[in-house]
Amino acid sequence: MSFQNPVFIPGPTNIPESLRKACDMPTIDHRSPLFGQILHPARAGVQKVLKSNSAEVFIFPSTGTGGWETALTNTLSAGDKVLAARNGMFSHRWIDMCQRHGLNVEIVETPWGEGLPADRYEEILTADTSHEITAVLATHNETATGVKSDIAAVRKALNAAGHPAMLFVDGVSSIGSMDFRFDEWGVDVAVTGSQKGFMLPAGLAIVGFSQRAMDATSKGTLPRTFFDVHDMAKGYANSAYPYTPAVGLMNGLNQACDMLLGEGLENVFARHHRIAEGVRAAVGAWGLDLCAADPSVYSDTVSAIRTPNGLNATDIVTHAAEKYGVAFGVGLGEVAGKVFRIGHLGSLTDVMALSGIATAEMCMVDLGLNIQLGSGVAAAQEYYRGHSGAVQKDAA
Amino acid sequence: MSFQNPVFIPGPTNIPESLRKACDMPTIDHRSPLFGQILHPARAGVQKVLKSNSAEVFIFPSTGTGGWETALTNTLSAGDKVLAARNGMFSHRWIDMCQRHGLNVEIVETPWGEGLPADRYEEILTADTSHEITAVLATHNETATGVKSDIAAVRKALNAAGHPAMLFVDGVSSIGSMDFRFDEWGVDVAVTGSQKGFMLPAGLAIVGFSQRAMDATSKGTLPRTFFDVHDMAKGYANSAYPYTPAVGLMNGLNQACDMLLGEGLENVFARHHRIAEGVRAAVGAWGLDLCAADPSVYSDTVSAIRTPNGLNATDIVTHAAEKYGVAFGVGLGEVAGKVFRIGHLGSLTDVMALSGIATAEMCMVDLGLNIQLGSGVAAAQEYYRGHSGAVQKDAA
Amino acid sequence: MSFQNPVFIPGPTNIPESLRKACDMPTIDHRSPLFGQILHPARAGVQKVLKSNSAEVFIFPSTGTGGWETALTNTLSAGDKVLAARNGMFSHRWIDMCQRHGLNVEIVETPWGEGLPADRYEEILTADTSHEITAVLATHNETATGVKSDIAAVRKALNAAGHPAMLFVDGVSSIGSMDFRFDEWGVDVAVTGSQKGFMLPAGLAIVGFSQRAMDATSKGTLPRTFFDVHDMAKGYANSAYPYTPAVGLMNGLNQACDMLLGEGLENVFARHHRIAEGVRAAVGAWGLDLCAADPSVYSDTVSAIRTPNGLNATDIVTHAAEKYGVAFGVGLGEVAGKVFRIGHLGSLTDVMALSGIATAEMCMVDLGLNIQLGSGVAAAQEYYRGHSGAVQKDAA
Amino acid sequence: MSFQNPVFIPGPTNIPESLRKACDMPTIDHRSPLFGQILHPARAGVQKVLKSNSAEVFIFPSTGTGGWETALTNTLSAGDKVLAARNGMFSHRWIDMCQRHGLNVEIVETPWGEGLPADRYEEILTADTSHEITAVLATHNETATGVKSDIAAVRKALNAAGHPAMLFVDGVSSIGSMDFRFDEWGVDVAVTGSQKGFMLPAGLAIVGFSQRAMDATSKGTLPRTFFDVHDMAKGYANSAYPYTPAVGLMNGLNQACDMLLGEGLENVFARHHRIAEGVRAAVGAWGLDLCAADPSVYSDTVSAIRTPNGLNATDIVTHAAEKYGVAFGVGLGEVAGKVFRIGHLGSLTDVMALSGIATAEMCMVDLGLNIQLGSGVAAAQEYYRGHSGAVQKDAA
Repeated sequence: MSFQNPVFIPGPTNIPESLRKACDMPTIDHRSPLFGQILHPARAGVQKVLKSNSAEVFIFPSTGTGGWETALTNTLSAGDKVLAARNGMFSHRWIDMCQRHGLNVEIVETPWGEGLPADRYEEILTADTSHEITAVLATHNETATGVKSDIAAVRKALNAAGHPAMLFVDGVSSIGSMDFRFDEWGVDVAVTGSQKGFMLPAGLAIVGFSQRAMDATSKGTLPRTFFDVHDMAKGYANSAYPYTPAVGLMNGLNQACDMLLGEGLENVFARHHRIAEGVRAAVGAWGLDLCAADPSVYSDTVSAIRTPNGLNATDIVTHAAEKYGVAFGVGLGEVAGKVFRIGHLGSLTDVMALSGIATAEMCMVDLGLNIQLGSGVAAAQEYYRGHSGAVQKDAA
Repeated sequence: MSFQNPVFIPGPTNIPESLRKACDMPTIDHRSPLFGQILHPARAGVQKVLKSNSAEVFIFPSTGTGGWETALTNTLSAGDKVLAARNGMFSHRWIDMCQRHGLNVEIVETPWGEGLPADRYEEILTADTSHEITAVLATHNETATGVKSDIAAVRKALNAAGHPAMLFVDGVSSIGSMDFRFDEWGVDVAVTGSQKGFMLPAGLAIVGFSQRAMDATSKGTLPRTFFDVHDMAKGYANSAYPYTPAVGLMNGLNQACDMLLGEGLENVFARHHRIAEGVRAAVGAWGLDLCAADPSVYSDTVSAIRTPNGLNATDIVTHAAEKYGVAFGVGLGEVAGKVFRIGHLGSLTDVMALSGIATAEMCMVDLGLNIQLGSGVAAAQEYYRGHSGAVQKDAA
Repeated sequence: MSFQNPVFIPGPTNIPESLRKACDMPTIDHRSPLFGQILHPARAGVQKVLKSNSAEVFIFPSTGTGGWETALTNTLSAGDKVLAARNGMFSHRWIDMCQRHGLNVEIVETPWGEGLPADRYEEILTADTSHEITAVLATHNETATGVKSDIAAVRKALNAAGHPAMLFVDGVSSIGSMDFRFDEWGVDVAVTGSQKGFMLPAGLAIVGFSQRAMDATSKGTLPRTFFDVHDMAKGYANSAYPYTPAVGLMNGLNQACDMLLGEGLENVFARHHRIAEGVRAAVGAWGLDLCAADPSVYSDTVSAIRTPNGLNATDIVTHAAEKYGVAFGVGLGEVAGKVFRIGHLGSLTDVMALSGIATAEMCMVDLGLNIQLGSGVAAAQEYYRGHSGAVQKDAA
Repeated sequence: MSFQNPVFIPGPTNIPESLRKACDMPTIDHRSPLFGQILHPARAGVQKVLKSNSAEVFIFPSTGTGGWETALTNTLSAGDKVLAARNGMFSHRWIDMCQRHGLNVEIVETPWGEGLPADRYEEILTADTSHEITAVLATHNETATGVKSDIAAVRKALNAAGHPAMLFVDGVSSIGSMDFRFDEWGVDVAVTGSQKGFMLPAGLAIVGFSQRAMDATSKGTLPRTFFDVHDMAKGYANSAYPYTPAVGLMNGLNQACDMLLGEGLENVFARHHRIAEGVRAAVGAWGLDLCAADPSVYSDTVSAIRTPNGLNATDIVTHAAEKYGVAFGVGLGEVAGKVFRIGHLGSLTDVMALSGIATAEMCMVDLGLNIQLGSGVAAAQEYYRGHSGAVQKDAA
């Protein structure tokens, strides 16, 4: 195993030195007051990263998938109707989870590469005059296609339809990296994990509940224990936990929030945008297309890059790993073999991004694509030169 | 926060240096072949620690509580009947989980301090001629009371009754520290976590399924996605995971298994027994009683020590933390305030145990108990002198 | 190798978690401004720990032995006369170094176990009317015998004699643990290392020069390059170093100073005294004698304990390592085989000290000494109960 | 402080994950047998890296500068004559050290950018019929100019002259990265440090002595104590050390040798050559010149790149640090302001090298040089594509 090169997968991201140290903690007694000194600021930090003044933040030893299950099982009952669009692998999986839990999902099939169709949501919600739809599911950033959706527009659709459904947002690959406005967008449940914008190892599901979602928990009858937010809330009130917490990761989360808020959320978002723009400049110079249909949906955390017919995009990923020791993301589901993905979120610099771009170039040339070596790098360099930002602080 | 003294809570345990380093891993691509090099040996290692040749081992980013939920939701359906004894806080919680998931629990109330009543199990199972009971739940080691139960006897009860119910065993605070025989005892699901016998931080649920339990998964209709073992098995077949794995912890688990198996399981158990015997010798010298009713149920991983009437046992724990920076365990549930607990599992030496015993002595004297300073220490020293074992290897 | 038990050697000490992390630093460019952000506060911190307002602090990638050589070679010339007492292994070695470098050492032979004879110094200095003696050497704390000397008295001797000799003090096992007053005592060169009171790994010589010592550097003709303080001072003026610095250790030193100063030097000294008193209470309870001749010279950082005739004290150390995995210090030089040493400096708690005492007890009983198990522990417990201090902070 | 980007200074190098962990060791008793388990294999490993069967290897808590001093002070006496060429900053400093220690240095002034003039050495040695010259100094790789010298040719010069002088070689920035043949070249003292080819933090001087050099130690009268190889040898014979060793670094050194020898020295050298060739291809594409006069002296560990008149090369280094958070090396001494240096030794990949090249390009364009973005990267990519090697193993 070699750890020399940065990874360019869309999460888990490269981990800053200081956060690795924060996670690598000796055992403390999680029933002692020490634990509260980690728990409470971590929850407060996440609330700020969500741009919320009131979201109840829950942190589970789990992953984003567990966060989805937390959203569903605490607020809904078997047979409840939910509205969701499928425009990529992760929205697909959330829909699948709903179905496994006995929910009735109205699915809006959406081309992979496009954002969530807020207009279709509005039509359906408007037509649902009996308010059968209990919740609307929205994937903020489709990690599989590199597509960002407009959550504000989904909120507008709900409002325009005068519909009381709750809004559940999968922000796994957006929160902490791209602008997310829990309060302003009227989000009811936001879901993320530790291993993306928070730059930590995987192992935490991080969830925010609005007051409305908290109210819904008394009605939802889906069975849950591990993911029960009542148990969690009761524990938090005593600076405790309903079971054994992942203390080191939570300590890391606390410090990750400090890092993000210390840099300034808008600066964090600008940094992600800058690095993403460089990658996109490279893709343009290569003459390739993004999976994302148009610039309005370009994701600042991951780019899915279409390869020409005849080249299995997965070969690029395999080749990069084997020959150069560099990890990119493969295409998933419908776009398997058609795209490869460059993750550009979390702890990353322009300089690191350039090494990923340079590697992708070598791989494509190695595999016979008609790409000019250095071309993508030059396009990204030109962008980075003109838009350089502060070097990220990492006090270790 | 000070990390100088060892902890004496019944998990998470002190973490060996080498395991801390194994967990503190830079990001790798969990979709690359590297991941399989961690996943497969970790699963094989756990199988050996379970003393099984065939158990399907599943590892979730979760905790023991998630492991219980995995056992229940993959194999059972709402309304199914299960048999369980309640003899402590953790058996209580598992029963509570069953009820929340709509299971029909036949509860055998058992005094806290006693082991599981295999004879009552046999009576009930024998009487259940229509085989309504689908599963029998057994807590191998009640962490709340320091009581070990006889799982072989539970198996005998099932066999004597000729009953086909599955046997689910909570081995959270026994596996890896006390003898556990998955195959010999006919266990169908065994549950543990990373933070006890495996000496790692909390964050992994570790579960073993027998072939019968795997077969049951096609019949169980309780909803599950995060904890679905089919998804997990499908992932494993491709050296992958259904969502993002906690790679560092799994790397730690792999190495923890190597450590335990390298020391030899019987040596590991003997070490735990030796250290526990020293602690019990100290308790005897203090003239105090264990919560555990008699020597046949003494736990080698945790001792719950009854304090005389008039002394709130929790005060000892608080005092130890505040004055001496040492963590013991408080009493939980029925025995809250009546016992304090010394955890003596995982990465511990005679010498470390002596410092815990010495601290408990000082606390009890500080709080007015009529205990002679040095008395418990001397009793433990006498035992350790005569029964010393090899110093645990920790190659870092 | 097992790292479970604390060490009880008189340095290197146990390393606090936060300092281990501070030392474990990725590579930075030591010619960039980042280095100055470590160098300058580290030097300023050491100056405060020395209780000096003006000492020039030099930090070499070396050890205390290199610090001695720095003191000598920068200020003296071959044939120069120096005055030194030999009362232990480390004063002996410093004298040996002087002789190897061609200095003329007037040696005051002093029984091992006694402090430096300030009265004899005064006589000799008074008699040296031609001021041939250029420097007086003083070992503040003899690590080999556990003997502290009175440096203020040595200064008084110099003053009483009206003698202009410089005062060089070996504070290797005192600075940062016991009171040291560079300015008040008129110290000209103070020498220490990273691995004692600063609680870091070995690898730094830390030296303070008075203005008089700095002036002497222009006269001293002993050859030196690596240890040349002029080169060092010139580097520092540019936030740089004359060669490659040990950046991680210096970062650790910077944070170690913050830790010591944050706790408060007087609190640090009181903590060392408290822990030492507990150890000495145990020695008394065992009926054994310290090598240190009387309480006025008892060292708060290390106790050398005489064993009865017929027992080779080194056997205790070997036995403790082999049977219990605990490290004590052997006797050195004249007292080899006659004493074993318990180091009690640096990062240590009462609770850790008790485990060392308990181990020593077991070893002595194992080896046939007529010691009552628990007796030393009880004496120490009694002391610690009545004199407990704050738990050391270790923000990691 | 940000640790995200790799460093491109000619040492200390980037540290492999596994070596950081090896160095970050809890305290052990360096007088216990554990220490021998680190010391002996570390020395044996270094011997192999030196390609020697018999060199006595000494490891000091110091740096390469201390290694030079070890070579001189153990074997020579004041007034002894040594022969040395000055062709860069580091050969200059070694000469300066000789002079400070009272040696009589015959200096062969050599243009910076050229290798050591073996022919001039031969002339001088041949002329020295009375064999006044005791030692010949040779800097294998001038870190300041990126110039490699031909040590085999120096040996031939000595042999051709039939001269008995010892051959002292500074291999600080070559050993472990470029071919070094202690036995074959008849080296008498080889000097290096931990922070170059061994990929560790600075803090160790590593020195190899031939039997002839060992014999010379009994004649040399320069004063030394800290750097005395007799004390060191005596310690080693007892698995011990004359003072407190830097145990963690030595543990790192042990594992570094395992890493280098596991990869295979020839593979290590080939990897360095490959990465260096890519950097040189970039320099060529930029239309710039190396400081190194011709390909026969190109260093595979560092490239010093001349900038066009009018551009202060140091500005590139400052700019890279401030704008991009990347560290290059400045020019030193005669070539200060005229060259900047890209270090490409130690733990480095093609991919990392490309990010350094890309950064240098951006800096030069930012500062107004007429360089085409992507041009150097493309040249290096072309080379790396065609000459890719195995990814370095780093088992952590």
